[in-house]
Amino acid sequence: MNDISPRRSGGRAARRASRAAPLDKSLRPVRPGMEGGFYKPLSDQDVDRIHEAALRALEEIGLCDAPESGVAYLTSVGCIAGDDGRVRFPRHVVEKALETACREITLYSRDGENDLKLSGNRVHFGTAGAAVNMVDVEGRNYRDSTVQDLHDAAKIVDTLENIHFLQRPMVCRDIPDNREMDLNTIYASCSGTTKHIGTSFTEPDFVDDALKMLHMIAGSEEAWRAKPFMSNSNCFVVPPMKFATEACQVMEKCIEGGMPVLLLSAGMAGATAPSTVAGAIVQAVAECLAGLVYVNAIKPGYPAIFGTWPFGLDLRTGAMTGGSGEQALLTAGCAQMHNFYGLPGGAAAGMTDAKLPDMQAGWEQMCSNVLAGIAGLNMVYESVGMHASLLGFCHESLILGDDMIGHAQRVLRGIEVDDATLGLDQMAEVCLGGPGHYLGTDETLSRMEKDYVYPSLGDRTSPKEWAEIGKPDLNNKAIERKEEILAKPSKAAFPPELDAALREAFKIHLPPQ
Amino acid sequence: MNDISPRRSGGRAARRASRAAPLDKSLRPVRPGMEGGFYKPLSDQDVDRIHEAALRALEEIGLCDAPESGVAYLTSVGCIAGDDGRVRFPRHVVEKALETACREITLYSRDGENDLKLSGNRVHFGTAGAAVNMVDVEGRNYRDSTVQDLHDAAKIVDTLENIHFLQRPMVCRDIPDNREMDLNTIYASCSGTTKHIGTSFTEPDFVDDALKMLHMIAGSEEAWRAKPFMSNSNCFVVPPMKFATEACQVMEKCIEGGMPVLLLSAGMAGATAPSTVAGAIVQAVAECLAGLVYVNAIKPGYPAIFGTWPFGLDLRTGAMTGGSGEQALLTAGCAQMHNFYGLPGGAAAGMTDAKLPDMQAGWEQMCSNVLAGIAGLNMVYESVGMHASLLGFCHESLILGDDMIGHAQRVLRGIEVDDATLGLDQMAEVCLGGPGHYLGTDETLSRMEKDYVYPSLGDRTSPKEWAEIGKPDLNNKAIERKEEILAKPSKAAFPPELDAALREAFKIHLPPQ
Repeated sequence: MNDISPRRSGGRAARRASRAAPLDKSLRPVRPGMEGGFYKPLSDQDVDRIHEAALRALEEIGLCDAPESGVAYLTSVGCIAGDDGRVRFPRHVVEKALETACREITLYSRDGENDLKLSGNRVHFGTAGAAVNMVDVEGRNYRDSTVQDLHDAAKIVDTLENIHFLQRPMVCRDIPDNREMDLNTIYASCSGTTKHIGTSFTEPDFVDDALKMLHMIAGSEEAWRAKPFMSNSNCFVVPPMKFATEACQVMEKCIEGGMPVLLLSAGMAGATAPSTVAGAIVQAVAECLAGLVYVNAIKPGYPAIFGTWPFGLDLRTGAMTGGSGEQALLTAGCAQMHNFYGLPGGAAAGMTDAKLPDMQAGWEQMCSNVLAGIAGLNMVYESVGMHASLLGFCHESLILGDDMIGHAQRVLRGIEVDDATLGLDQMAEVCLGGPGHYLGTDETLSRMEKDYVYPSLGDRTSPKEWAEIGKPDLNNKAIERKEEILAKPSKAAFPPELDAALREAFKIHLPPQ
Repeated sequence: MNDISPRRSGGRAARRASRAAPLDKSLRPVRPGMEGGFYKPLSDQDVDRIHEAALRALEEIGLCDAPESGVAYLTSVGCIAGDDGRVRFPRHVVEKALETACREITLYSRDGENDLKLSGNRVHFGTAGAAVNMVDVEGRNYRDSTVQDLHDAAKIVDTLENIHFLQRPMVCRDIPDNREMDLNTIYASCSGTTKHIGTSFTEPDFVDDALKMLHMIAGSEEAWRAKPFMSNSNCFVVPPMKFATEACQVMEKCIEGGMPVLLLSAGMAGATAPSTVAGAIVQAVAECLAGLVYVNAIKPGYPAIFGTWPFGLDLRTGAMTGGSGEQALLTAGCAQMHNFYGLPGGAAAGMTDAKLPDMQAGWEQMCSNVLAGIAGLNMVYESVGMHASLLGFCHESLILGDDMIGHAQRVLRGIEVDDATLGLDQMAEVCLGGPGHYLGTDETLSRMEKDYVYPSLGDRTSPKEWAEIGKPDLNNKAIERKEEILAKPSKAAFPPELDAALREAFKIHLPPQ
C-alpha cells in the first residue's frame, strides 16, 4: 500500500510556468519520423509468400522495354536478357541488390529545419500526385491547375506543422511546353517551401537544366550534392512488368546528378495489376525490386525509395478509386513489405474519391493515412489535399489535412506505459481522501500540451457555443486560413539576386509575388 | 516455369452468370462478426502491466458506494468491506471471477436474422449514447431529441447492412416522466428494428415494467429468456472507483430478468480518470473487473459485456471530446485488454466533435472506428451518427456511416494470401503473350462483388460526370435517403393485436405510424 498512498506533491506553480513557455520542437506531442509498425495486416508467412512470388515473377516473367543502357546495367550484374525482349532477374541478383541497397536515406530540406530521415518504421506525411484540376471549394468547381496554384500549395505546406514534405501535387496546365513546365515546377515549389520537394521530369533531356537550376538555388553543385533537397519521383515502370523506357533514362540522369530517386510502381489493381490485394502487392514489389537492381547496378547503395504504389479500381466502372478500404490495405501491406526488406519505402494514402472536402473525404482520407502510419510507412505520399481519385487538388482540404494528420500522428505515437502513465499513485491520491477527480492534478496539467494534440480548425465547441459564434462552417474556416497564408510573403522566397539570376537563366512563368 | 505459364481457362460465361445472381449473405465482401486483432497498440508486457496495475487498484483502493445488496454479494465471494466504506478485491477473487465469467455471448435479434456472436476478436458496429439533441442538417441546427427521432433512428438502422445493432442513441426529451421515457424507449426501438437493442433504465423500479413489455413483445417470458433481444447498458460505476448505487440495483434486476448486461465504465481521462491513455485504461479495466466479480457473484457465468469506455477530454477547456487520436488509442487499447482476458467486450468509437456531417466528422469517425475494428473490439458502440462529443445524434450521419463502416469492415477483413490471390499464374498469362492488362480476366471479374466493397452514397464519379449529374451534395443525398426510408412502414412494426395490447398496458407516446 505504501507506494500508492495519498501524497501531496509540490511544484505545481513551477510546472504551470514551464508550460506557459513555447514547447521545444522535441517536446511537441507529435513530430515527423515517429515510429510505426504495430499494425501488421500480413502474417510473417504471408510476407514470405509475397516475397517468394515476387522473386519468381522476376525470375520467370521479368520485365520488358528497358532502355539499351538499362539492359547493359542489368546484364552487367547478372540479369538475363531474353530473346523475347524481357530482362529476367535470377534470385541471387535480387538478393545481392538487397544487400547493397541504401537503408538509410536523408531527404534534405533547403534550410535544414525539416530533414526527413528515412529508416526503420519512421513515418512522414506529405503531398504528391499529378492532379490536373484545382478544386474550387467556394464555387464547387473543378478547373485547370496552374503554376500559381502549385506555388500556393507549396506556401501552404510550408506553414503546416504536420505536413512534412511537398511532392509536386499538381500539373501546371498553364505551361504547355513540357520543359518549361518541369523547370517552373521546381521554381514554383522551391520558392514556396524549404521543406523537401519531390518532382518528376517528362523527358531525360530536361534533367540537365533542372540540375542547373538546383545548383543555382543551392549556391553551387557541391552544395546541392551535399544536401539534395529535391528527389525525383520516377515512374520507372509501366505495370504490368514493363520498364518505362524514358523514365528509366530520367532515372539514370538523376542518379548521375545526385538526386535521390523514388522508384514508383503505380499499378492499378484489376487493370494493370492483379485485382487481388495480395497480387497487386506482389507485382508492385517485383517491379520495385527490379528498379532496385537497376539503381544498384548503376551505383551501389544509391538512395532510392522503394515506391510500391498500387492503386485500387472500381471494378464496376473500371475507373480508378483512391478512397477505398482495399486501397488502405494495399498501402499498409506494402509498408509491411518495405519493413521486411528493411528498405526506406513510400506509398500512396489519404486519397479520396470525393469531389469536395466533405464527410466522405474525411473518412476516406483518414482511413488509409492512419493505417499507413501505424503500419510504419516511411513516406506517406498523397496524404492530403487529393480529391476525385487523384484528379483534383484542393488547398482548403490540404489545410484541413494538417489537423487530420496531427490526429493520425497522435495514434501513431501510441500508448506510453510506465509507472507515471499507469497512474496508480495518482489514482490512490484522488480516490483515497483526495478530490475524487483528476482535474487540475499536476499529472493532468503537465500532460496538457506534451501529450495531447489539439485541432487547429477542427471544431470542439458545445452546440451552444457553436451557435453563439455563428455556427462556423469548416470549409469556410479553411478558406479564411488559406487567404491568411497566401496574403503573406513566402518564407522560402529566393533572395532578389538569385531570383533575378533564375529569371534570367530560365523562362519563369510565376509572376513576382 | 510450368505452373505459371500462360493458359486459357474456361468457365467465364458460367462465372458471369453466377455473378448476376444476388450474393448469398455468406458471400458478401463484409459481414458482422469478422475477426480483428492484428493491431496491437500495447506490447505483451504493457498488457501485463495494465492488468497488474488494475489488480492492485482493486486490492488497494477498491470501490465505494456499492448498494447493501452488492456488498453482500461481493463479500460472499471474498471481497473485503473496509471501514472506509470501500470494498476491496483480493487478487484471487478477481482471478476466480475471470475463470467463471461468460466467454461467449449471443446478443439475439428479434427475428434471428442478425444475432451477434460475441467471442474472440469478432467485431460488430452499432449505435449508442444518450444524446440530448437531434442534429438538423438542413437547418444547421441542434434541437431536443424526441421519441419519434429515436423510432426513426431504429428504422434507419434496420435498413443499414453494416450497422449491426441499435443501442439507444438518444434520450426522448419529449417524455418528462423517467419511467415512461424508459418504457417508450423500448417501444420506439423495438417497433423500428428487429436488430439487437441496448437500453438503460433510470431506476431499478422500472425494470419490472420493462420486462413485462419485453415478454409481451417476445410472446412469453420463456420466449424472452430463451433469446433476449435486448441488453442493459449499465453505467454501474461513477469513476473514479465508485459504484453507482442505483445502477447496480438495476443490474441486479436485469440479471434476475435474464437481460444481458453491458458493464459500462465511462471515465473521462483528465477528469474522472487519469489523464494518460494507459492510466485511463487501467482504471476502466479495474472498474469493469469489479463489475465482473459482482455479476459472477450473483450468477456465475452470466452474460456481461466488459465495457471499458474511457473518454477523452480537451484539457484546455475541460470539455469532453470524442473525436481525438487519444480517444482512438483509449478504445483500441481497451480492445486489446478484452482480448487478453478472453472476455466479450465493448467500447466507444466513431464519435466526432464536429457539429455537422462534415470533413472533420468523417476523419474523426473513421479513425477510431477502423482502429477499434482491427484491434478486434467485439462491440463498437457509438460508431455512427454521434456528433458534438455525444451531445447530438444525426440521422443523415447515421446513413452515411453505413458507407464508412463498410469501408472500415473491408479493412478489417484484411488481405487474403493464397495461390489464387498471389496471382502469379494470372500475371504470367497477362504479361507473356497475353493482353497486357487484367481488365476482364476471370479472376478480376469473379472478385468484383465478393472482394470489393462499394459505397452506397459515397461518390466515385469523375469530375466531368459529377458536373453532369448536377454536382450532388453528400449531405443532400443522405437527406433524400432518409426521407425514402422513413416514408416506408417499419418492417419491425408490431402486429396490430400486439400493438393494441402494448398501448393498452402502457402509456405509449409514439403515435401510430
